[in-house]
Parts: sequence; C-alpha cells; structure tokens
Amino acid sequence: MTEYVYDFTEGGRGMADLLGSKGANLAEMTRLGLPVPRGFTITTAACRVFLSTGEPPPELERQLAEHLSALEWAAGKRLGQADDPLLVSVRSGARVSMPGMMETVLDIGLNDHSVLGLAATSGRERFAWDSYRRLVQMFGTTVMGVDPSLFEETLARVREQHHVPDDSRLDVCDLVRIVESFKDLIAERTGRRFPHPAAEQLRQAVLAVFASWNGERAKLYRHRERIPDDLGTAAVVQTMVFGNLGRDSGSGVAFTRDPATGRAGMYGDYLPSAQGEDVVSGVRNTLPLRELAELDPVSFARLRQHLDRLEDHYRDLCDVEFTIERGTLWVLQTRVGKRTAQAAFTMASDMADEGLITSRRALTRVGGEQLAQLMFPRFDTTGASDALVRGVPASPGAAVGAVVFDSAEAVRRADAGEQVVLVRNETTAADLPGMIAARAVLTARGGKTSHAAVVARGMGTVCVCGAEDMIVDTRARCLVAGGSTVVEGAVVSVDGSEGVVRLGALPLVESDVMRYFDGAAPARDGGVPDPVRPVHRLMQEADAARRLRVRANADTPQDAARARRHGAEGIGLCRTEHMFLGDRRRLVEAVVLAGGDAEREAALGALLPLQRADLAGILEAMDGLPVTIRLLDPPLHEFLPDLTDLAVRAAVREAAGEPRNPRDAARLAAVTRIHEANPMLGLRGVRLGLVVPGLLAVQVRAIAEAVAERKRAGGAPRAEIMVPLVAAVEELRLVRDEAARVLAEVSAESCVDVACPVGTMIELPRAALTAGELAREADFFSFGTNDLTQTTWGFSRDDVEGAFFPAYLERGVFQASPFEEIDRDGVGRLVRIAVAGGRAAHPGLEIGVCGEHGGDPASVRFFHEAGLDYVSCSPFRVPVARLEAGRAAVPDEAAPDR
Amino acid sequence: MTEYVYDFTEGGRGMADLLGSKGANLAEMTRLGLPVPRGFTITTAACRVFLSTGEPPPELERQLAEHLSALEWAAGKRLGQADDPLLVSVRSGARVSMPGMMETVLDIGLNDHSVLGLAATSGRERFAWDSYRRLVQMFGTTVMGVDPSLFEETLARVREQHHVPDDSRLDVCDLVRIVESFKDLIAERTGRRFPHPAAEQLRQAVLAVFASWNGERAKLYRHRERIPDDLGTAAVVQTMVFGNLGRDSGSGVAFTRDPATGRAGMYGDYLPSAQGEDVVSGVRNTLPLRELAELDPVSFARLRQHLDRLEDHYRDLCDVEFTIERGTLWVLQTRVGKRTAQAAFTMASDMADEGLITSRRALTRVGGEQLAQLMFPRFDTTGASDALVRGVPASPGAAVGAVVFDSAEAVRRADAGEQVVLVRNETTAADLPGMIAARAVLTARGGKTSHAAVVARGMGTVCVCGAEDMIVDTRARCLVAGGSTVVEGAVVSVDGSEGVVRLGALPLVESDVMRYFDGAAPARDGGVPDPVRPVHRLMQEADAARRLRVRANADTPQDAARARRHGAEGIGLCRTEHMFLGDRRRLVEAVVLAGGDAEREAALGALLPLQRADLAGILEAMDGLPVTIRLLDPPLHEFLPDLTDLAVRAAVREAAGEPRNPRDAARLAAVTRIHEANPMLGLRGVRLGLVVPGLLAVQVRAIAEAVAERKRAGGAPRAEIMVPLVAAVEELRLVRDEAARVLAEVSAESCVDVACPVGTMIELPRAALTAGELAREADFFSFGTNDLTQTTWGFSRDDVEGAFFPAYLERGVFQASPFEEIDRDGVGRLVRIAVAGGRAAHPGLEIGVCGEHGGDPASVRFFHEAGLDYVSCSPFRVPVARLEAGRAAVPDEAAPDR
Repeated sequence: MTEYVYDFTEGGRGMADLLGSKGANLAEMTRLGLPVPRGFTITTAACRVFLSTGEPPPELERQLAEHLSALEWAAGKRLGQADDPLLVSVRSGARVSMPGMMETVLDIGLNDHSVLGLAATSGRERFAWDSYRRLVQMFGTTVMGVDPSLFEETLARVREQHHVPDDSRLDVCDLVRIVESFKDLIAERTGRRFPHPAAEQLRQAVLAVFASWNGERAKLYRHRERIPDDLGTAAVVQTMVFGNLGRDSGSGVAFTRDPATGRAGMYGDYLPSAQGEDVVSGVRNTLPLRELAELDPVSFARLRQHLDRLEDHYRDLCDVEFTIERGTLWVLQTRVGKRTAQAAFTMASDMADEGLITSRRALTRVGGEQLAQLMFPRFDTTGASDALVRGVPASPGAAVGAVVFDSAEAVRRADAGEQVVLVRNETTAADLPGMIAARAVLTARGGKTSHAAVVARGMGTVCVCGAEDMIVDTRARCLVAGGSTVVEGAVVSVDGSEGVVRLGALPLVESDVMRYFDGAAPARDGGVPDPVRPVHRLMQEADAARRLRVRANADTPQDAARARRHGAEGIGLCRTEHMFLGDRRRLVEAVVLAGGDAEREAALGALLPLQRADLAGILEAMDGLPVTIRLLDPPLHEFLPDLTDLAVRAAVREAAGEPRNPRDAARLAAVTRIHEANPMLGLRGVRLGLVVPGLLAVQVRAIAEAVAERKRAGGAPRAEIMVPLVAAVEELRLVRDEAARVLAEVSAESCVDVACPVGTMIELPRAALTAGELAREADFFSFGTNDLTQTTWGFSRDDVEGAFFPAYLERGVFQASPFEEIDRDGVGRLVRIAVAGGRAAHPGLEIGVCGEHGGDPASVRFFHEAGLDYVSCSPFRVPVARLEAGRAAVPDEAAPDR
Repeated sequence: MTEYVYDFTEGGRGMADLLGSKGANLAEMTRLGLPVPRGFTITTAACRVFLSTGEPPPELERQLAEHLSALEWAAGKRLGQADDPLLVSVRSGARVSMPGMMETVLDIGLNDHSVLGLAATSGRERFAWDSYRRLVQMFGTTVMGVDPSLFEETLARVREQHHVPDDSRLDVCDLVRIVESFKDLIAERTGRRFPHPAAEQLRQAVLAVFASWNGERAKLYRHRERIPDDLGTAAVVQTMVFGNLGRDSGSGVAFTRDPATGRAGMYGDYLPSAQGEDVVSGVRNTLPLRELAELDPVSFARLRQHLDRLEDHYRDLCDVEFTIERGTLWVLQTRVGKRTAQAAFTMASDMADEGLITSRRALTRVGGEQLAQLMFPRFDTTGASDALVRGVPASPGAAVGAVVFDSAEAVRRADAGEQVVLVRNETTAADLPGMIAARAVLTARGGKTSHAAVVARGMGTVCVCGAEDMIVDTRARCLVAGGSTVVEGAVVSVDGSEGVVRLGALPLVESDVMRYFDGAAPARDGGVPDPVRPVHRLMQEADAARRLRVRANADTPQDAARARRHGAEGIGLCRTEHMFLGDRRRLVEAVVLAGGDAEREAALGALLPLQRADLAGILEAMDGLPVTIRLLDPPLHEFLPDLTDLAVRAAVREAAGEPRNPRDAARLAAVTRIHEANPMLGLRGVRLGLVVPGLLAVQVRAIAEAVAERKRAGGAPRAEIMVPLVAAVEELRLVRDEAARVLAEVSAESCVDVACPVGTMIELPRAALTAGELAREADFFSFGTNDLTQTTWGFSRDDVEGAFFPAYLERGVFQASPFEEIDRDGVGRLVRIAVAGGRAAHPGLEIGVCGEHGGDPASVRFFHEAGLDYVSCSPFRVPVARLEAGRAAVPDEAAPDR
C-alpha cells in the first residue's frame, strides 16, 4: 500500500521529489536531532492523485488520521480540543520553489470553543483571539478564495471606528467582533461557513495546497520555466510554536555566515515577542541577531550550535527560521541560503580552506555571472538624485560622460579627450565608431538582444537599452525624460548593471577584481590583496580543472593585449570588417560599387597597407598564441549608403528643380542595383570573396605580409585564416586554392614562410550537416553561433527581438533568448552533429566557438559537454569563461537538492 | 601481373569502369558476333598510373606490343609497313561521356613510306595522300597540340592558290605539298617532328588520350558535374576500315527505331563513298538509310539483322556507326541511343507490348521532364520571323498576348478579356495579380530561380527570364530589343520552352497529352486516342507502382478542380495569403497597421466572409479528399506599402511646401515602425498569429465555418489546418490550443462537428531538429522545402539568385539550384532527421512535402526514398509527380552502363 504521509522522523533531504524541499529539509533536521516542532508531510504523490482524479487517494484519510493521532499523543493534546488545543500549520512545498502557490495557513485547530482553551492555557486572551483572527483571515483567503482586500477593509473600518493606528491597539472585544465579521464575510462571499471541526480545517487546507498547484499564476510560471506540470506539491503539517507569548519569546532568521560579505560567523535578525511572519513582513524593525546573546544567552548558544551542525552537515551556507517560545528554541525551516557574488567567492574559498569542501567543489559554488558582477565599477549613490530614466540593464558596469546624439560627435569629442555617452533611438552598424568611442550607450528602443546591447556587451561597454520613457530628438540634439530636457554635452551617470541613468557625475568605485585581472592589483611581492584573494584562488582552481581553452574575440592590438592580460590563450575571432570602418568605409564602398577593374583594384590597393598594419599589431600583442582572422563577412549594405536616404535626397533635389548630381545619381543607381531585400541572407561572407574579384586575395595578402613582417622582426606570429558563411565544401576548396596561391606568392616575395592554417566557420545549418565533407578541407572549425541561431530558428536578431521576443519569453516559448544562451535542442544538436561529423572525417580536428555564446556561462558548459577545444569571447568575458570552463569540468555534486 | 590491355574478344559491356563505355560496347558486339574491326582497349587503370606517376606502367609497352602483334598477325600486315600497311584509329573512351577530352586520331600507321604502299594496295593514290593529310592534321592538333586553325589556314591558302572551292578538288600534288606544309608547321610550332615510326605514333596517341583527361575543359566539366577526378579514361585501338574507297563503300549511322517519333523500324542516314567523320560533320548531304536497300541490299539486310540482334540484346534503342568498305559491312561503335520525349514514351510502351521489357521496366525509360514537354502547347513556327529577343526558358509552354508593363494594366486588360504578356525588369510580390492575369511573363533580369520564374512555374504560366538584350522602359511603356521598339498592346508570341519571344501571333498547336489529362481527350467509348496511348499506358503503370501519393498546391476552386482532373489526391498546400491579395490587401494592411483593437477587429471581421467563401469553394472542388490549409505565412512587408516609396513621397511634398497629409504621415510612421531589415527572417508565419490579436482566430474560424457550410450542404469536406514557420513545440501548442477553442466554438454555434487535424510545416532547421517534440503535438508534418532551403543554406531566393548563382553553378558549387532540385546532403539530411524523429515519437505520422520541389523529378525520387507519404506540387505538375513517384518505386535496372 502506498504511504502518502511521512512523519518528519521518517524522511531525509534526499526525498525532495516526494516530500518537497521544505518537508525533506525538516526531516533532515529532525534526523540530526535539531529541535524541530513535530509534524508530518503529505506527499507529492497524494497531490498527483488529487490533480488527476479530483479526489485525494482513498487511503489518505486514514493515514492522515493516524499521523495526526501520533502527533496528538506526543503533544498530549488534541487538535481543536476545547480546553488545551493542539494547533498546527499547513504549508505547501514543492521540489522547486513555486511562486503563485498557496503558502501557509497557521493556527489550524482554533474555533469558537478552542480559542477559549488557548486563552486559558496561554494565560493570554488577546493572543488567543488574535491567533483565531489570523486563522480565519488566512483560511478565508487561501483556502476559501475570498478576496484578501475585503478582510483588510474590514480591519481598516474597525481601526477607524476606534481611532487606533494599528492592530496591536485593538482589544479582545474588538478582535472577537472582527472574527465574527470575518466569518460573516466568508459565508456571504462563498455561501459556505468557516469550518469549526479542526479535522475539517486540516483536510480543507491540505486539499487547498494541492489545488493551488494548478492556480493560473503557478501554471504560467511553470510554463515559462519549463517545470513539468505533473510534479505536484507536498503539504507540510507542523505543530505551532509561538514567538508572540511575551518577552521571553520571539522569532528570527539566521545564516551560518554573512550572506552579503561571506564572512564567517552567525548572522541574522531577531524580533522579540513576534511570530515569524512579523519578521518577514518588515512591519516592525528587527534587532541584529547578536543582541539575542544578551536577551537570551542560552537560546543564542543553542542556535549557534545548531547552525554549526547544519553547515557542517550541508557543507554550505544554511539559513534557518527559528522561534523562541517562552525560552525554548525551535527551528522551523532550513535551506541552503542565497548569497551575493562577493559572498559566494569568499565562502567558497574559506570553506575550502577550512576543509569543509574540496577546492574542486568550491568551484561549483561560484558562477561566471557572479564573477562578472565583481568586475564592474560601481557608483557610490550616497546622496544621489533620483533616476533620470530607467531601461533594460543590457551591458553591466558604470560610466560617466557627456551626452552626444550621433556617432560622429561621439568620435570628435572622444578624440578631444572627453568621455561621452552615446544616446540613440536605436543603433545600427553605422553607429559602431561612436559606440567604440563612447563610455556608455543609451537607447530608447530595443532589449537585451538589440544591436546596441549585443555590440556593447561584446566591447564591454556599459549599455542601457529600451529606455522607453525617454524621447530622443536627434535634430534638436536633446533628450526629454521625466520632465527634464537634457541637451548635448550634459553629463550623466549610466549604471548598466541596474539599468538606471542619473543626471550629473556620480563618484565611481573601481572594482578590485578588475584591477586584479588587468594586472594592476597584485603587489610587487606577488601577493594578492585580500579582497580578490578568493577570486584568485578559484581562478587558479578553474584553470587547473578546465579542459576547454579560452580565447578572445578582438579586432585591435589594444583589445588583444587586454585579452591576454585576462588570460586569453589566443584570439578566436579577429573580424577584419571592423578594420573597414570609419574612413576606410569609403574604400570598401569604392570596392563594392567600382565601375571597373581599375577602380576596384585601386581601392583594394589602398586597403592593403592599412589592414596589414592592423594585423601586425594584433599578431604582436598575441605573439606566440594563435590568432584566427576571419575574412570579410558582413552584408554589403553595412558598407553602403542607405537606399531610402539616397532616394529621398534625389527626389527632393528633383522636386526643387536642382540639377542632377551625377555622382549621387550613380551611387543611387548602384545601390539600387545591389539592394537586397534580406541582406542577412544575401551576398556576404565567402560568397562575397568568390564574387568580387580581388577581395579575397587582398585580405589573404594583408595577413601573409603581416606574418612576414612579424617574423622578420623576430616574432612568433600564429595567424589562422577563417572563412565565414561556408555552406558547401566547394566554397571552402575554392578559397583554400586562392589562399594557397597568395600565401605562396608572399612566401616567395618575402623569403619568409607565411603558411597559415585555413579553417571554416560553422555558422549555417548546412555547414553543420555536411561537416564531414568540410572537415576534409578544413584545418579547424569554429562555430559562429549567432548566425547559426539566426538560420536554425529562421529569425534575425536585428528584426525580431522587439517584435515578438517579449511575448515569446512571457508565453514560455523561450526560457532565455537563444541569442544569449545556446539553444541546446536545436542549435546545440547541430553543434553535436558537426563535431561528430568533423572529427570522424578528420580525427583531432580543432574545434572552437567564436559566437556571442562563448562568454555565456550556460553555453560554456554546453560547449564543454559537446567536446569543443576552446571558446572565444570578448576580452572582458575571458575570466568568466575560464571560471565556467573550470566549473564545467567538475562533475555534478552527488548531493541531493539544495 | 596487371593486365592493362584487353582485346575486343576479352571484355564485355559490364566492364565500362575498366574499358570505358566505348571499349566495353565494342567488346560486347564482338562477343555477339557482329562484324567489328579487330582491336583492343588500353584500360583506365593504365591511365590512372600515367596520371599519378607521369609515366605509363612499365608493363604497358610489352603488353601493347603483344596485342599489336596479334592484331598484325590476324590482319596479315604490319603497322607502318611500307608496302601494305596496317592502319589503326586511337580513340578516348571514359565510363562517362567527357567533353573536352581528345577524341580520335585516325589512320595511324601512315608515313612518307607507307603512304605509297597504301596508294598501291588501294589503287587510289589520292585516297592515300588524303588519309595521310588527315593523320598529320589530327595528330598535329590533338597529340602535338598545334592550334587547329593554323592547319585550316594552310588549307585555305592552297585552295585559294588553286581557285578551288573545297578540298575534294585538290589533286595528289596539292595533297603532297599540303602534307609537307603540315609537317613543317608542326616542327616550327612544337620544335618536334611528326613521328614517322608507326609504333611511336601509336604510343604518343595513347598517352595523349590519357593526358587529355586532365585538360582544362575536361577538369572544369568534371568539377561542375562532380565526376571524380581519378576515374581516368581508356584508349581504344581499332583497325581502320574505309568508307571512302569508291561507290561500293560508304559510312552511316543507324538506329533500331526512329529516335524522333519512337516508331519501330530501322532508321538512319547513309553517305556513299565517305568516312564516318564526313557523315557526322554534315559537310555533305546524307541519304535516308532506306536508300541503302537499293544501293547495297546485302549490306542493308545484314545491318538490319545486326540492329535487331543489338536491340534484342540491349533491350533498348541502340544506335551504331557503320562503314561499308568495298561491299563489306563493319560496325564501328554502338550505344543506347538518345531520343525525344515522344519517342521515349512510344518506345517504352511498344517494347513492353512486344515483351522486350516488363511494364515496370518501361516506366524507368521515361521521365517527368519528358512528360512535361509533351503537355505544353507548341508554336507552329513555319515561316515565322526571327526572334525579337531570347532569354532563359524559365517556365515552358507557348503563349500569345499583348505586351503590358505593369500589374494593374495586366489585370485591367485581362478582365476585359484580352490575353496579355506581362513585361518587367524583374517581378516582386506586388506583381502577383498581374502575373496571375497574364498568359506569359517576360523579364529582363533573373534566371530560372528568380521570383518571376518560380512563381510562373508554380502557376504553370509561360515565362522567359533574363532577356538581357531587352530594355524595358516602364515610364514610356515600351521595350526596345533587336533595334525594334515594342509599345504597350503590341502582340508577341512567347515560347517558354525555348526561351524565345517573337513579334506577332504565331499559331498554337495544342498538346494532345494535355487535353488527355484535362479529361477532354478520351473518346466517349473510354478509348484513348493514339498519340496519347503510350502516356496513358505508362501513367496507369506509374499509379499502380507508386507508394507516394500526389497532391496539388492550389489556392482557388479552379486550380483545385484542375488538379483533381490531373489526378491529385488532395490539396497539400492551400495558401490563405493568396486570398489576401488584390482588394483585400487593403484589409490586411488595416489589420497590421491598426491603431487600436476596434479598428483591427473591424478589418478582421471584413476578411472572415471572404475567406470562408473561398475555402468553401475549394473544399467543394476537392470534396472527399484532404485539403491542407496553411495559416497566414508571408512577411509583413508583402502587405504593406514600400517604405522608400512613402518616404520619397513625403519628402517631395515637404520640399514642395505642400501641407502634410495626416493619413500618409501615419502610414509612413507605422511602416517605419515595423520595417524589417530582413523580412524573410522577421515577424511572419506562426509568429504573426501569436502576436497580432485575433488574426489566428479569424483564419481558423473561416476554415471551420467553411467546413460547416459544406457539411450542411451534404459534402464531405476534409480540411486540415497547417501552421507555418514553427521553430519550437510551444508555438505549435499555443496555436493548437487556440484553434481547438475556435473549432469548439464553431461546432457549438453550427451544431456541426468541424474538428480538423492540426499539423505543422517543417520549414526551419530547428523544426527538423526537434521533430520528435513537434510530432507529439502535430497530426501531420509537411515539409516546406523552399524556406528550409533558404535557412539551411542561409540565402534568400529573392536576393542571391542573380548575385552569385551563375558563378556558383559555373564553379561547381552547385550542380543545380537547390531551389529547383532538393539538396540531398544538406536539406535532405534535415528531411531524414525530421522523418526519423517524427515517426519515432508518433508512429504512423503522415508526412508530406508542399514546397516547389514536390514537382521536381529528382526531388520526388528523394522524397520516395526518405519515406514520405505524399508530395504536393502545382496542378500542372501533378502528372509529372505521379509518373516520377511510379519510377521511384521501381528498383534500379540491374543492367550495366548504357
């Protein structure tokens, strides 16, 4: 026969599936001998029966009665007994925390008779009636479904009649009348009476817990978080203890360490003469826990002892809720506690030092996002003004600068040494120079995956997106927000971690951790200053543990140097097109729109020395480490004037009767000719190289000459040529042939061997599907997961984010944007197909990833599992990726639920 | 020891890999006892050794000498012998036909001495010197690499000196001098002398054959056709026989049946007193073969006997080259002959009747493209003028109509009963109404996969694309081509099968086969008229053999009815968006740009009855058969005004100082707001349904109400709802839930059960990769291979075809556009993944394909192999798909090379 009820003495923390997290931890504490008020748990299995049949299992009634009898026998009093009633609480508790479910009904067992018994035995009539009032209110709301505001209105009316500011001033008579009003309210609203038999109260509360699993909010939450609908919840029944029985009673929460700093030593809050709910609600000001040592040294010492026992047992930060009832300490609940980023590092490191956990295990207690948080500077907001505007915290960190409204102005002022914040409605590739020049980017439109957000994160630039209450007037060169007009040049402080922009320059607090990674922090004697010691320790552990190598995406010598300081083991993606921006854009335009071969060759010729110099600088910064250089990739239109702009200008000239400008007319004709309806799916990547004569050769030559230059200078350049957007092996073969020709030419001209590996990006589904063929022509693979996500899902990052991602996230189609966290089922499956196909055809083939996902913690774990050799991410994310790669290499904790 | 030389008596037709197709067939004929001049074949294995080492295999010299000795012994004379020389030909012959390889050197064995012997033994001095001239010229060109035009120039000079119009008037002295000049020319150009030793001639010719495998043109051809580079070619050495030894000699080609009509009975051409090359070159007019019966009845009877033997042995049409040397018939070569479409059907049917092959085998002798050719009307071009312009034959057939230059004019004139030809530079979705109205479409730009071509083929409308010599002036409403200006309204005749447009109306010859499929051809007694009897017979065979069902893509009752007559077993794709065109476009625009809920609901309400009526008509036409209705799919911009147009118009108004038109300004603002950089990857398909309130519901309601209407009228409607562009199972689940709600509503309102299956398109890589999950929520799958090809390759049909497809086809990246023939390695792999995943999760899941590929012969075969249940194609292609599905079900012929 199925057992649907477990006494706290029967379970353990490994049984969270059946008992819920709360019930399992209560059983664990009981087993450990902690003073837990007796009780039992009705299992999730009982809930599942109820949900599927509409009735609890037939055995449940008898089992519940048996466990209740045992509880009553141990307590020496009965539930609802008139003279000295046993009271219990009923709480919901699933394996995972589930907002939207019914949580708690306290004081079950009180009714018009037993309330008098409670008054008599406790010696506190007001306490008894207040408890009864709490029960009727909670029961009416959560079990019987009456709108909670109706109870609040009744209370408010009574307070008004008596001219008292809060409930604590109401006397017994008031409370008796309130209880009556509440019972009338329930009967009127539900047509049913508040149940007086205590067993009936208990039965209804348990079934209400079960039914709440299918509440609208709970269902929506599960849908969104992809929690299976058939888990069900447990119901925990526990003997009531009271912290509100006078000065020798009270309630509190306690942590085994400080969850804010991670420092060792008990930490928490205490509220004398109060129930636990009063501590949590924050109505009254709590005392620091240490004051309990003076109020009740015995309980304090016991609490410390219990917390030590728990931390030693759970080997992690624990928090507990406790109540002292007339000098007796009870522990009501425990769990592994939440903590700040700083605390996570400090505690993990300390616990490893203390031998509580191994150093490898310590790694799993911290995360990449926590590390990233520690790397950003922060504002000191003491005395700061209110926010000017709020938006999506799209790229974390803090920056101060003068507001500018276009890219050119940003560049001009930055060149003059000013710090600027670029403000746009939204950004495009044309804003890139300005974004590079700016300290922060602020946009009125777009979310975490908009162009501004993605590019800013890639560069580690602070960004707040989608500040929808802001009106940007680029013509008047001002923005309007919160009633203020901010003109160009005004200074603002942008907090990209919080998504807040304030007027004026707030003081910045630099991150010690960032100084450490930038190499400024370690003292001359090689020591590491205290605040970053835990980070240092865990990074060393991660580097020792990880199998994945970490490279950086970098397009300039400065970025390359920084990436190297952050621990990058090479460059996984050097985008040549970023060298085609600014002034050189004109040259690229000339290549693309060239009227003839001579014109095109001249433009290409002008690009060559510029590219060579850039590349030589990067190879120097990464001397001895691999630098993967991607050939020109982006859609043509990114280098060309906008068609609509040109057409409008021409039409306006014509309307004004002005003579036709032949150059503009030619540009309009050319741009019209090569205009693409879907540039992302157009003539780009390897296609461009195979179609525009000389484009491929000039890029390969720039790489080869840079290698030759570095070798002559005594360097050890390790350039690798990467072909973008390959879909078919023939494309790769044609590029390889041409690259080989150019490399041989430069080797002959320079008398230096400039041979480079040639590999391919895997960024189209077809490349992944035909990876076996590609591997025979490729020296390496590198996944471009941005494009691969676009084509696998059939949507473009730039177009769809605002259009339907919010709705999709809300309705549970995504848990996270697939552009931020790798989509394991779709894109991930292609990655696995490509790895298997590539390695089967080319054993030992080196495979990396250079898409945005290379710096995302969950994605790094996936790439480790998929057997990649390295991830490449922005320089700023390199430490994050190192840490995550280390974590990924540590097997999952065998321990049960936390 | 490896045998590198095979006598004709040693091989057979199964050895084409080793002996090449030519050598294998010569051996086969020798085995059959046909009079084949003796000879031997040097194997492809010898060629492969030569190609990889640069030297022939060491054994070859000895083996060659042995086989030559045997040949000489049998002939009773020796190669190059001065008094009575043996002469041989050397020809190349790979397993597959390879343009660009060296083909033939005749008369090897002649030199300054043996030419005199040949003159003496043949009794014809001129013949001997002309043969020598031929050898030196051919050898010089193909073996020694001299530019052929240099020999032609020498000949022309001599003719001029002697004032003779052709070589046959040159006398022996002239020929002697010419041979001398030719030898001098060779020495001068190559620095080497024409080799006199006959064995050296043979050796050099054989190696030249081998070396020609790696000629530039041959390599390019192989690359393009994906023929492996390491096959190599064989070299065939055969005793010369001469048809140019007087009136009792001659050469010809003969077929076992008429390759033009398929009629039984020997057929061919004969040229008395001529070598084979003279027949092929067409310099002299040949006689019909039947005249040989009078000229040489014995040889004619023998030839007939040999041909009967060959056809009986090969069980297919054979053709031969033959020579009669002084009354003796020799067969020099045979192969399975090429044939016209009509001949293919007639012969396959006849051969099955004759018991030569089985009826199933007969199916494999005809193809879908051949059937399609027979279905089109043709022009009677007797006395027709020259072409006005030529272009790509993009959609076959013939049509006559008045030239119009925009969609509106096409619709206006068509509505007035006029037949029109729509002429555009290129077409877009906006031209669709005009394309539907037109009899033919002619464009100046784009190829076989341009919008015009794809849409026209889909509709079965004649189309000529990429007529680049034509200038279209839409403003002046005329086109200029070949010096003529053609104004709007002028009548032209467009031949979409040939890609030719002529001025004026040519008479049209209707296709009997098409009349047959349209149900007009069968006589009242159920008999089938003669011209279509073979088609009828093979279609019956195909229908009996095929496992794939064939449905049609149809959006109107007319198309549905036609598809049904053509044998469609349902509709696999009914596109609701085609019902949103014309006047209704305004309503869709209103839905999308609606300022509020009320405005949008009004627009949706207006669409409902229109859609319901359309759908009811289609369900009526397909009563009893499934009709799969796809919910709205295309990108938003297809329904909206063009952004650039609106912007230009607004700017011009502003420049002219005209007051702002508020409605236009609102439209511009709205279109700007939802403008997408890549609409193909934007808000479309299921996303639109999940984001625009009410859009999904109104479409489902229209379907449900149409079903109810048909059921009340006593029909048996079988509507199926298909969700487009699904990437994630949650999307499908959300749509199913909403559809179920609407279907239940309509069932309740109408008291008719309107339940419909709900299935999904598989047209994104992610859908294919997660097919297992989708299958749990889907009643059926239908592959949308157009979109799947776009996303798998990462290019959009509309954008890339002109930009790089020509280069890609030329360089061998594609064999065919992946939009025309399914890409087996990439898209095909996704299809197989999805079929496996879908059927594993949902056994018996119905799976079809409704993309353009459903009517492509090679693709139909793939879909059969991949285990699909049906293909769906345009109504016009239904017979083609039926035939191909039947062919696909017949196992490959066990017979060797043909």
